[in-house]
Amino acid sequence: MTTAEEVLYRCSELDRFSANPRHLERVHLTKEHAAANAAAATWLERAGLRTWVDAAGNLWARREGPAPDSPALVLGSHLDTVPDAGSFDGMLGVVMAIAVAERLREVALPFALEVVGFSDEEGTRFGKALLGSQAVAGVWDPDWWELRDRDGVTLHQAFLDFGLDPRRVGEAARDPRSIVAYLEAHIEQGPELEAADRSLGYVTTIAGARRFRLSVVGEARHAGGTPYPRRRDALVGAGEAIVAIERLAKDSDCIATVGRLEVTPGAVNVIPGRADFSLDLRAASDAERDEMWEVIQQTIGEICTRRRLRFEPVENHSAPAAPCAPWLQQAIIDGIRVGEPTDQEPMGLWSRAGHDAMAIAEIADIGMLFVRCHDGISHHPAEDVREIDVARGLDAFEQAVLRVAERWTSS
Amino acid sequence: MTTAEEVLYRCSELDRFSANPRHLERVHLTKEHAAANAAAATWLERAGLRTWVDAAGNLWARREGPAPDSPALVLGSHLDTVPDAGSFDGMLGVVMAIAVAERLREVALPFALEVVGFSDEEGTRFGKALLGSQAVAGVWDPDWWELRDRDGVTLHQAFLDFGLDPRRVGEAARDPRSIVAYLEAHIEQGPELEAADRSLGYVTTIAGARRFRLSVVGEARHAGGTPYPRRRDALVGAGEAIVAIERLAKDSDCIATVGRLEVTPGAVNVIPGRADFSLDLRAASDAERDEMWEVIQQTIGEICTRRRLRFEPVENHSAPAAPCAPWLQQAIIDGIRVGEPTDQEPMGLWSRAGHDAMAIAEIADIGMLFVRCHDGISHHPAEDVREIDVARGLDAFEQAVLRVAERWTSS
Repeated sequence: MTTAEEVLYRCSELDRFSANPRHLERVHLTKEHAAANAAAATWLERAGLRTWVDAAGNLWARREGPAPDSPALVLGSHLDTVPDAGSFDGMLGVVMAIAVAERLREVALPFALEVVGFSDEEGTRFGKALLGSQAVAGVWDPDWWELRDRDGVTLHQAFLDFGLDPRRVGEAARDPRSIVAYLEAHIEQGPELEAADRSLGYVTTIAGARRFRLSVVGEARHAGGTPYPRRRDALVGAGEAIVAIERLAKDSDCIATVGRLEVTPGAVNVIPGRADFSLDLRAASDAERDEMWEVIQQTIGEICTRRRLRFEPVENHSAPAAPCAPWLQQAIIDGIRVGEPTDQEPMGLWSRAGHDAMAIAEIADIGMLFVRCHDGISHHPAEDVREIDVARGLDAFEQAVLRVAERWTSS
Repeated sequence: MTTAEEVLYRCSELDRFSANPRHLERVHLTKEHAAANAAAATWLERAGLRTWVDAAGNLWARREGPAPDSPALVLGSHLDTVPDAGSFDGMLGVVMAIAVAERLREVALPFALEVVGFSDEEGTRFGKALLGSQAVAGVWDPDWWELRDRDGVTLHQAFLDFGLDPRRVGEAARDPRSIVAYLEAHIEQGPELEAADRSLGYVTTIAGARRFRLSVVGEARHAGGTPYPRRRDALVGAGEAIVAIERLAKDSDCIATVGRLEVTPGAVNVIPGRADFSLDLRAASDAERDEMWEVIQQTIGEICTRRRLRFEPVENHSAPAAPCAPWLQQAIIDGIRVGEPTDQEPMGLWSRAGHDAMAIAEIADIGMLFVRCHDGISHHPAEDVREIDVARGLDAFEQAVLRVAERWTSS
């Protein structure tokens, strides 16, 4: 039986596949992405599953059910990371799914069992999240082919470089009838389980993020020779916008983050002519989130008018909140009761972070198991989980699969 | 006689040597730098001067004086640019110097005549300005070898890649006794000549810039999972600092510019853990400038304390104000009277922009001629000069050399 120790070891093994020797960075359709897919495939084959990489770079594995075309319960998460990442966001869910498939190897199930390692959840490389799981959900937008990474490489070219045929991306889409449900284990990425002294939690709903590329355009001029009344400094305008975004979000229940900013031309002695920055916007409900965007947009517009700058917002990601299916929430609750026996009721949380499950919700019912993480830290090398929590998580996740089997059989 | 038209044509010829086909960017010790040196050398050889590239990548040319070791009057400016540059900042001064050397080809002078195209004035590549002229001034700091460009290439490695021996950089230093004086023509990079309807001006003093790399360090965490009280967002801190810098400078007579900013890790869904940005600080006097830095430093320190961020300022450039020598100011005034005949007195200006002449002031008297530019624009593709102003500038610059010859002979 695959132990929590082995799961943690495999997560650390995946750290080796990084663009940077000093920190973990594994983004969509890179050679380190291919290497991580290959390593996970080895573990999956050893667990008796047949593996393949789909037309969007996602790693899949399947063990057949009662019939060759039995629908499948899919377990999984993603194998890509942010820059300077930790070892668990995404990878823990994939490796736990592999471990559960191994544990259930000799157990008859009424459906096929599949494991997926999605190719792009973070959106680090092309600024657009969930590219892998959206391909599977069949919601691919042809405009995405023109997205470019920092080196100017288009998504289209990246597919070709990875050995994928962009014309065939539609083949990654799954027929909803072929999927029983989708279950994902993930670190919480927040401090609530730790604060409540709990190892595990079940997810009630996943808040949907909206993401924007905001551009502020002024005029590049010489830093010395241009007096203040003639300046149209894009970076000072962006700075004022970033401070305002924080203030507006803090005054609400929203979370707004500017994670990326680029200055053009970017020389020490030239007034910035252009600043491009990202905005990631989340809230408990889509309505609160959308209202916040209206206020932010108006505020930045006013800043730019006052400073004689041009403001150009482009929305490049929008996901509605995705509720977890009650019957899968119940299966995970039952699993947690087995994995983490206590007098207390299993703890339900809503996820402020986005997950592949949001995309898969388009084609299947979804359920999620959260595992406590250290200090709520994620997207950082200090990301950490306890072995005992992983052990409890494995028991709970395995049990949840068995409960899904019971409910699906009786339905 | 080399005409203003030919000078403008040569400036446009140099545009071809660019790292980017769409805009002009020619930085220190690149292949386009070598190509610009070679093109200018061709014009210089044709004007009868002997050319060489010194141990710091500067292009030199010399026509001998009465004796083989006669000291030289040096005319010049720089051949490097900022990113997305115009065609005249630096290049116009080099090309005008070449033209004046051609015009004076048959005129006996009491000294040798040299032309220099400095290799690095802007500091674009390594964040440190005046690397070329400081090597000539003999003030090279061995710490500079470890400066890195955006790709992580050290200055040391860049020297090697350019075919230069870093151990021999000292050979670029000139003995003060070998230089009669240094004269530089340059576009004004400000709106004053245009506002006064004048083609030319003489420089009284060059304000010295101080430059800093300012780092604000917080903690990279997940954008969704981290509530505001736990956030230590380096970019919001930097944004507040950038807005404060503008406010403080506007309230004084100083000019403070943040031209560059980099965010780490720089992902759309990660709270920035670090922001590094540049500060370029100028004022009419060194005292005002230094006082402004104290206020800025204290203000950013307070912002960072309040936001639980760490503030790490590093000064990477500091130049004292460099006054132009009165006898050279007079030679240029006399030159302007010939080049731009009018009832008005020639106009004197202080330069808010830095120039190679500041570094050369360490080893020689300096004088500068300013040429009107369109709308005060520089460091931008819209940088422009009028042919009539260049024609007047050539006459004035040639005349100034003759006046220096008279005064030097009689001294």
